[in-house]
Amino acid sequence: MSDLENCLNTIIHIFHKYSEREGDKNTLTKRELKELLTHELPSFTQHVKDQSSFDSLMEGLDTDGDAECDFQEFMTFITMVTICCHEFFEHHEDE
Amino acid sequence: MSDLENCLNTIIHIFHKYSEREGDKNTLTKRELKELLTHELPSFTQHVKDQSSFDSLMEGLDTDGDAECDFQEFMTFITMVTICCHEFFEHHEDE
Repeated sequence: MSDLENCLNTIIHIFHKYSEREGDKNTLTKRELKELLTHELPSFTQHVKDQSSFDSLMEGLDTDGDAECDFQEFMTFITMVTICCHEFFEHHEDE
Repeated sequence: MSDLENCLNTIIHIFHKYSEREGDKNTLTKRELKELLTHELPSFTQHVKDQSSFDSLMEGLDTDGDAECDFQEFMTFITMVTICCHEFFEHHEDE
């Protein structure tokens, strides 16, 4: 597998590592999402410290309003974070 | 860096490895996209063999119609591929 293929595989694997913990094994509950972000995206979660910011994030991600985050909703979030990182590095390079 | 953070970093790095080759260094030309897919997503490109399929793919990705694929358009594609892989594995598990 190429590096990129390995990455896509890792993203799927990480989603399921947390989604399997409680309730529907194919979606993240609010608690599972919080655990995932805390352990797998620590650089991001240091900016989401209070519960109300986290609640807003979950509401934003949960586009179908079922109070769970499915894989498509999770990928929308991953895309958003990656685009933000990319913009940060682009501006950083210009300095 | 966590595994997930490493993945996001790798995706950004791979995009730039190819986007820097010719023209605007922040976008992929059709040729750069083809090189990226051939080398970095070989499992995917084995299904996109002829030039017309590749042209349709590029047209689909290029949502702003500038004949180049920028990072946001590239991430839309990566999301699409990851969701397809995820669905494949989900159905495979049910068997």
